[in-house]
Amino acid sequence: MYKIILIPASFKGTMSSMEICAIMARVIRQYFPQCEIVSIPVADGGEGTVDAFLTAMGGKKVTLTVKGPYMEEVPAFYGLIDDGKTAVIEMAACAGLPLVGANRQAHKTTTYGVGQLMAHALRGGCTKIIVGLGGSATNDLGTGAAAALGVRFLDLDGNEFIPVGETLSRIDMIDMSDLMPAVRQAEIVSMCDIDNPLYGKAGAAYVFAPQKGADSQMVKHLDDQLRAAARTIKRELGVDLANIPGSGAAGGMGGGMVAFFDSRLQMGIETVLDIVHFDEKVHGADLVFSGEGKIDTQSLRGKVVIGVARRTKPAGVPLVAVVGDIGDDIEKAYEEGVSAIFSINRVAVPVQEARARAKSDLALTMDNLMRFIKRMREQTSK
Amino acid sequence: MYKIILIPASFKGTMSSMEICAIMARVIRQYFPQCEIVSIPVADGGEGTVDAFLTAMGGKKVTLTVKGPYMEEVPAFYGLIDDGKTAVIEMAACAGLPLVGANRQAHKTTTYGVGQLMAHALRGGCTKIIVGLGGSATNDLGTGAAAALGVRFLDLDGNEFIPVGETLSRIDMIDMSDLMPAVRQAEIVSMCDIDNPLYGKAGAAYVFAPQKGADSQMVKHLDDQLRAAARTIKRELGVDLANIPGSGAAGGMGGGMVAFFDSRLQMGIETVLDIVHFDEKVHGADLVFSGEGKIDTQSLRGKVVIGVARRTKPAGVPLVAVVGDIGDDIEKAYEEGVSAIFSINRVAVPVQEARARAKSDLALTMDNLMRFIKRMREQTSK
Repeated sequence: MYKIILIPASFKGTMSSMEICAIMARVIRQYFPQCEIVSIPVADGGEGTVDAFLTAMGGKKVTLTVKGPYMEEVPAFYGLIDDGKTAVIEMAACAGLPLVGANRQAHKTTTYGVGQLMAHALRGGCTKIIVGLGGSATNDLGTGAAAALGVRFLDLDGNEFIPVGETLSRIDMIDMSDLMPAVRQAEIVSMCDIDNPLYGKAGAAYVFAPQKGADSQMVKHLDDQLRAAARTIKRELGVDLANIPGSGAAGGMGGGMVAFFDSRLQMGIETVLDIVHFDEKVHGADLVFSGEGKIDTQSLRGKVVIGVARRTKPAGVPLVAVVGDIGDDIEKAYEEGVSAIFSINRVAVPVQEARARAKSDLALTMDNLMRFIKRMREQTSK
Repeated sequence: MYKIILIPASFKGTMSSMEICAIMARVIRQYFPQCEIVSIPVADGGEGTVDAFLTAMGGKKVTLTVKGPYMEEVPAFYGLIDDGKTAVIEMAACAGLPLVGANRQAHKTTTYGVGQLMAHALRGGCTKIIVGLGGSATNDLGTGAAAALGVRFLDLDGNEFIPVGETLSRIDMIDMSDLMPAVRQAEIVSMCDIDNPLYGKAGAAYVFAPQKGADSQMVKHLDDQLRAAARTIKRELGVDLANIPGSGAAGGMGGGMVAFFDSRLQMGIETVLDIVHFDEKVHGADLVFSGEGKIDTQSLRGKVVIGVARRTKPAGVPLVAVVGDIGDDIEKAYEEGVSAIFSINRVAVPVQEARARAKSDLALTMDNLMRFIKRMREQTSK
């Protein structure tokens, strides 16, 4: 084995993609100490996205103070990769749920700090910005971030204000003339692994606001606010968010990224594959390991393993998926290019118990796979 | 792949070794249609032992009527392998629990029919007899079988009788002079995967009689009977069963086989490996698959996978264990020669649920292994 690529998603609630890479790499080195191991932990836009890119690409972390969810000052960060030309921002760094603790009020929180991080990166010369959507405490449709970058929101009386979830319907005019010019010149990509619409029963408020502290009455209120703002955005900016899947990500930030910054919403895996130049990296690899918490008919719709398979197949490199659970009807995975799928489950126990032992079970599964590969190669070369 | 050997144990309560062989073979053929597949389902001495040997070796099944557990006439059978020179008998065929249904009375049942099967085989010219111990409804120390082959049991008054569990202590004299001469000339092997002593807390009565219908008072009584008979056997035949592990198998039949027929007690896997001439069969194989319901520190003490490993290692053939659960501390398995171990668990569910889906999960695991092998071989040959 000369070269192995590791490109797993996280096992949600169990192991981060970086932890998985570390475990896989440690085991592989025991059997093939000379092998080049390329770790590409897949970020999904949520917490850990910056570190994942820095692990995969190298780069540096910029720390600075920006506004938090309640306009308080918070220490935050973003990543610079690609010789400083690309910034990776995770919105959770300054608008994330952990920052509000028990004080969850989706109707009052802002994404203002996210705009400040973007502004800082643009002033520093970045020409591309990747914004990870996920883990947010907000429901402001990204209006806070927009305001931080110069977008002016005015009410019926012509008074400028920075909207939050409960005041979105007060927006009457949106003035883009002071938007920081670098925003228009930069390529802005939003990482977003969900396709929820902005409003309605599957929208940002109904699906995600409860975990951000909203009761059922507030959920309805927030949904109405999003709906009203969408009408205003359509009238003022000519952008119809109603038809854009993913608009409902991160309290409507998905929609705001499109409307205010002309951003592209993209699956995390596609962003990662592009940014790390996967097609070049896979060249000459003997084997690629990917994985996710569960592979099933849903994950076959463009999630990580399949995303990787679509690149390894034309490259002619075997791809092994090491996963938590293997669901039913996974034939399509093989058709797409997955060479084989192995579950880390080694004992028949319920999910909670399995999660608690996932790290050692992953290590054991990798250990057996590497033993097997090594032994079979010895055999073939006899 | 030119040749693959399948030599799994059963997954107790889930799949027989023959079912496992069939599933494995079916999957392998999908990927390597030209491959020679040698199926050696491992018998453990219990129900299915005869069929397992016939599958592995070819041969024929002899059917005849003998005495059942309550001296009723029952249809029974044994197998002839090795050109009719070796008979394979499973005691469950005429003294097994399924034959008594709800009428479980370990103190009244007999192994007489087992002796009749042996006699029939010997009269037919067999020079070797393999008796599978397991699944018995009896606790007669094999005295019934001995009686059927000519051993005479006499009480204090000199009256001959055929002992059962509750009358073992009545034995005062054991007369071997009428033992069928062919018994002494034949090689008699007892398959026995447990090492329980004849009596005491770990003995036949305490451990196994409850499932044969004995309540706690009867268990004590049966244990006393075994203990008394052991004293008589020591005095009369000079055989001290107290120190022979496995004497407690099958209601003391393990001990009886030693005392009356000078039989060797042997693990099922050792018997199978010998009988099928495994060392010859493994020659030229690319890969061996074994497996058992759970691999753990206990199964490392000479159970199936390890038994196979001790033959494949010197032969230089890779051995993959496909198992139900993988326990902790299995390093020794690799040291003994197991190349890799894979669990069939593909979703995190409790044991009962896992068992219900074991067959399809085994098929899926084999499917992924064969996909993987095929893909890696293509890669290596590039």
